[in-house]
Amino acid sequence: MTRPTNDSFLRALLRQPTDHTPIWLMRQAGRYLPEYCETRRRAGSFLQLCKNPALACEVTLQPLARYDLDAAILFSDILTVPDAMGLGLYFTEGEGPRFERPLREEWAIRGLTAPGPWDHLRYVMDAVAEIRRALNNSVPLIGFSGSPYTLACYMVEGGASNDYRHIKRMLYDRPDLLHRILSVTADAVTAYLNAQIDSGAQAVMLFDSWGGSLSAAAYREFSLSYMQRIVANLTREKNGERIPSIVFTKGGGLWLESIADSGCDAIGVDWTIDIGEARRRVGQRVALQGNLDPGVLFASPDIVATEARKVLDSHGADQTGLVFNLGHGISQFTPPENVRALVDAVREHGRAIRKTAP
Amino acid sequence: MTRPTNDSFLRALLRQPTDHTPIWLMRQAGRYLPEYCETRRRAGSFLQLCKNPALACEVTLQPLARYDLDAAILFSDILTVPDAMGLGLYFTEGEGPRFERPLREEWAIRGLTAPGPWDHLRYVMDAVAEIRRALNNSVPLIGFSGSPYTLACYMVEGGASNDYRHIKRMLYDRPDLLHRILSVTADAVTAYLNAQIDSGAQAVMLFDSWGGSLSAAAYREFSLSYMQRIVANLTREKNGERIPSIVFTKGGGLWLESIADSGCDAIGVDWTIDIGEARRRVGQRVALQGNLDPGVLFASPDIVATEARKVLDSHGADQTGLVFNLGHGISQFTPPENVRALVDAVREHGRAIRKTAP
Repeated sequence: MTRPTNDSFLRALLRQPTDHTPIWLMRQAGRYLPEYCETRRRAGSFLQLCKNPALACEVTLQPLARYDLDAAILFSDILTVPDAMGLGLYFTEGEGPRFERPLREEWAIRGLTAPGPWDHLRYVMDAVAEIRRALNNSVPLIGFSGSPYTLACYMVEGGASNDYRHIKRMLYDRPDLLHRILSVTADAVTAYLNAQIDSGAQAVMLFDSWGGSLSAAAYREFSLSYMQRIVANLTREKNGERIPSIVFTKGGGLWLESIADSGCDAIGVDWTIDIGEARRRVGQRVALQGNLDPGVLFASPDIVATEARKVLDSHGADQTGLVFNLGHGISQFTPPENVRALVDAVREHGRAIRKTAP
Repeated sequence: MTRPTNDSFLRALLRQPTDHTPIWLMRQAGRYLPEYCETRRRAGSFLQLCKNPALACEVTLQPLARYDLDAAILFSDILTVPDAMGLGLYFTEGEGPRFERPLREEWAIRGLTAPGPWDHLRYVMDAVAEIRRALNNSVPLIGFSGSPYTLACYMVEGGASNDYRHIKRMLYDRPDLLHRILSVTADAVTAYLNAQIDSGAQAVMLFDSWGGSLSAAAYREFSLSYMQRIVANLTREKNGERIPSIVFTKGGGLWLESIADSGCDAIGVDWTIDIGEARRRVGQRVALQGNLDPGVLFASPDIVATEARKVLDSHGADQTGLVFNLGHGISQFTPPENVRALVDAVREHGRAIRKTAP
């Protein structure tokens, strides 16, 4: 295994110098691309697309064929791990993911076990390996998982939720049960990410979509501490190359200092915090990944370019340790030509701004 | 008009000493109360309930009959102002509020005018006056409005939204049009709140439910600046009594310093920030109102009491300028006995903690 030809993304995560500011987009293989919709139609359903390594590889590469992106991200669902735990994942039109058997009874929680990634999630590992072959060392491949707390939200609620009333009741009334779910899930996620690394993932990211619904104290106890445990147990190096880790808590702007202390190499930040302020708060401890409002992509191409440049400018002429991204996944309603305007602006301005550095 | 017998809420907002920590709950007159559901059934619909001053008064008083609360809040909807602008408010089961005529066309935006509160919103003023009479100066009455940006979200999107794609497109592509909407709406809200004060409201609150979906820069330009303009134009005194104002941006924890500089007397804070940290950040400039996770109320009564005490403890033995509340509206799934446990714990611990002050 050799270093990718374009290793700017990996270098930025490790705070090494790069000649431009790397960019990729959360959910870059998604419904805003007509070719994605076409492949998904052929697959039959979202879940069949995730479980078919050849098709998952196909959609992973689609945004890279269109745009000059600096990383690929495994196409998969964040709920593969609870699905492998036997909760019965299914998707309903317009309502998103659901579980047939939400996890609320003590006996079921006591019986929960971490699925072996090579038994139950081999289709993910096959996809990782196939994508790596197809990428042919052009850009790095990112592996990922949902965070334990985010997965637990879906597992306990049985799907997306507005009020999280089942998991919050458990968190406050029976923290022992929630800790048991989170502990088993953290073990499962650790093994899952390490198997992805074994299969060829060159960086890994934890998506903590719902940690931001917690109080500051509950976030530390029920979300961050488990991400910290995962990060501590990740494979640090593969074939002499460091495998960087990224922790992204949506709505976690208040807690950046604690996240920076979690042991991760980079923090994903949403668009509610100015990236320059985020940099001042975490100092040089970690790389930052973000943070354009995905809503900017509903505007016209020249506005997209202007707003993208503002993000780079806010971080400053020293772009070390910055990976450009959106602050959240790209919307299905994004015009594809706006993504081109975005990528071009970041590429161009990311080089230009370096020349202004003292 | 005289000062209410229990004026602890008004005193706390003005950072004057009180012998206990006042408490009220956002959406305290709501579906978790069986008597509310009964009145709503009699009214026929939520909107008819809002538009009937006698019934609005009845539900406003219901939580005060059950619990030892320190303030009443006008029962109304946040969308009364856009409704009075002629957008055609209606409610669909399970989907929440919708507008028949979303505001997206330039001609419609140019034609938007601020409704006179005494013409189009007289039913609200009648409710305020009727509630004041019924309260008989026992506790103060809070008037309120949605913030201009939050109202604009509903007006432009035509209802609740996950991605705010119409208003974000307007914000970035045609900020002039959005500023026009916000400016007219800010004028309308100012007149609306001043009419509520004229009718008897003793404090007013701006609910900025969606400002937290903005970037830091956009929040200042499109949400906070208009709230600041409203606060500057509110009636400051009525019959020699100061009328305090509260600004609440859900998800605004990152921006507390700017909100504290807006001229408001108090900041509402959600549960994602530790209230002690919020106090340290804003210093003694403003009162704080918050901030228990409403999810705590899904737990058992003794846990509710424990978590409520933690909020008071986090603010510290100096409880000056603290109003206890939830960090967001109370859920319809809250057991009413948990609200009793909450109010009792805050009442008791709010007195006890003062005795530990140096």
